[in-house]
Amino acid sequence: MMSESLANNRICSLFGINFPIIQAGMVWCSGWELAAAVSEAGGLGIIGSGSMYPEVLRQHIRKCKSACNRPFAINLPLLYPQIEEHLNIIHEEGVNIVFTSAGNPAKYTPMLKNRGCTVVHVVSSSRFAEKAEAAGCDAVVAEGFEAGGHNGREETTSFCLIPEVVRSVSIPVIAAGGIGSGKAMLAAMVLGAEAVQIGSLFVASKESSAHQNFKEKVVNAKEGDTLLTFKELTPVRLLKNPFVNQIMLAYERGAGKDELRELLGRGRAKKGMFEGDITEGELEIGQVASQIQEILPASVIIKRLLEEYKAALTDCMGEDRFQW
Amino acid sequence: MMSESLANNRICSLFGINFPIIQAGMVWCSGWELAAAVSEAGGLGIIGSGSMYPEVLRQHIRKCKSACNRPFAINLPLLYPQIEEHLNIIHEEGVNIVFTSAGNPAKYTPMLKNRGCTVVHVVSSSRFAEKAEAAGCDAVVAEGFEAGGHNGREETTSFCLIPEVVRSVSIPVIAAGGIGSGKAMLAAMVLGAEAVQIGSLFVASKESSAHQNFKEKVVNAKEGDTLLTFKELTPVRLLKNPFVNQIMLAYERGAGKDELRELLGRGRAKKGMFEGDITEGELEIGQVASQIQEILPASVIIKRLLEEYKAALTDCMGEDRFQW
Repeated sequence: MMSESLANNRICSLFGINFPIIQAGMVWCSGWELAAAVSEAGGLGIIGSGSMYPEVLRQHIRKCKSACNRPFAINLPLLYPQIEEHLNIIHEEGVNIVFTSAGNPAKYTPMLKNRGCTVVHVVSSSRFAEKAEAAGCDAVVAEGFEAGGHNGREETTSFCLIPEVVRSVSIPVIAAGGIGSGKAMLAAMVLGAEAVQIGSLFVASKESSAHQNFKEKVVNAKEGDTLLTFKELTPVRLLKNPFVNQIMLAYERGAGKDELRELLGRGRAKKGMFEGDITEGELEIGQVASQIQEILPASVIIKRLLEEYKAALTDCMGEDRFQW
Repeated sequence: MMSESLANNRICSLFGINFPIIQAGMVWCSGWELAAAVSEAGGLGIIGSGSMYPEVLRQHIRKCKSACNRPFAINLPLLYPQIEEHLNIIHEEGVNIVFTSAGNPAKYTPMLKNRGCTVVHVVSSSRFAEKAEAAGCDAVVAEGFEAGGHNGREETTSFCLIPEVVRSVSIPVIAAGGIGSGKAMLAAMVLGAEAVQIGSLFVASKESSAHQNFKEKVVNAKEGDTLLTFKELTPVRLLKNPFVNQIMLAYERGAGKDELRELLGRGRAKKGMFEGDITEGELEIGQVASQIQEILPASVIIKRLLEEYKAALTDCMGEDRFQW
């Protein structure tokens, strides 16, 4: 898997990885086992720190270092309550790639850069991408409307967002949202991305810390089975389930922000994704879930993506539909 | 422009056109001038009959036939009140390509096929695509969430919809929604489409019957300037303007369906798109509007799309970001 050169693609060079495939840092799903498996397979694994207490994060970093000799990263939501402790642990443990999200990149990027980190910020618009570049970020993740979990307010889809972000910044752009195959990976690169960040496929991987019930629900998801909701609070894409039905009923009776906040309550993401309560829990996943048919080891997911990507590249040159 | 072969691509063969570029049939924007210009340039022009009285449609067909010696089509919304008259006129005037939308394809497809027409149905999900194929349609348009105007309820984006529809049917798939450049055209083909249908770029064409005020507002649109609204009635993607602000305020005060219907009223699309009232009118356009910088002749739009497409295809083979 690691026999190829990493000289050309800017994202491969930036992180020192073999393939421009990044596993999204996700709450409750991407602990050390998943991050290590992805990085060992030649991509970039990311530990999602948003659902971890500081000392839990430290343990995940240490286990990831023991399990893997390749670069890996931490995803850090900038609104995390104990962010200073997380930042110190990342520094103490010597992790030097940080993906930040959900907040202002100007606040911590200079400090992280001073500490020698490569910093990437997740954005949902070219305006935020420009802010990230101005803050000193080394790359941005452009995340489209179809992505799972928390999501931008402008609802710009990957098809429209990738070209806009690529046009707006000179740092490399990593496309996220809607990438479920090597074909989609190539399509994102054609639109100007230099790498892809993939969440949903890795939620349903063997090494994901998602509960087996949630993984199986992802595998069984059909087209149209997700929706973007809670737009008045923080927009989030969820897999439909009885909890989502409750949300729909609340909207139908004209529920206000307070009622919605009360309905959401606390701990629903953990309950659904980690504890496996697929009835009452919050199940964050992308539209691309409908394309996922199997729970596979992360290394197999990456291998397939690369094979499909190469086949798609070959098709461009030979298949009839591309010629006229 | 018409020097190339049309032997390979299934959509080019189906319609007898040179390039797999189809101009969307749009209310108030795509009359005979636009359709003729697109068809003369080697694409497929479509007269949008949804905003025409039957005798107006007849005049547009006759003018299009005089202005162009190439195949063109009619878009027919299946909920159009005088649909029988439209169907008779299409038959009497000998137009033999019909794109149907917004309704059940089982109702009229067999009759149109018996009359010798090529029939294409516009869908927003693979379930509807399967129905269209079962009804005898020759191709489907898969229209993603980012598209302008009326839109599907499941909100599936082009990135996710194209692969799903391609997997579900064996007839060729035309991608619509988010296609604003030759790069996007290639990305759609990589995802499995065999052609693209383009609306927004042609709204802002010289030959479009959109009012100049609307064309200029499209050219000035920025990222995030459209939204999908009226989901309780028929979901529609509109360019933000004072009328859209009124809609937003109505939602904020918890307006029900009746109030929304009253606010919408009648004739707003004509008022905005055709009469140029960009304050009070309904302005249907796709997210891709933010990528449109100029009002160009349709032939130039097609020429640029083809040049960009070929450049993108060459890039795939040579640019560093595709290699690692």
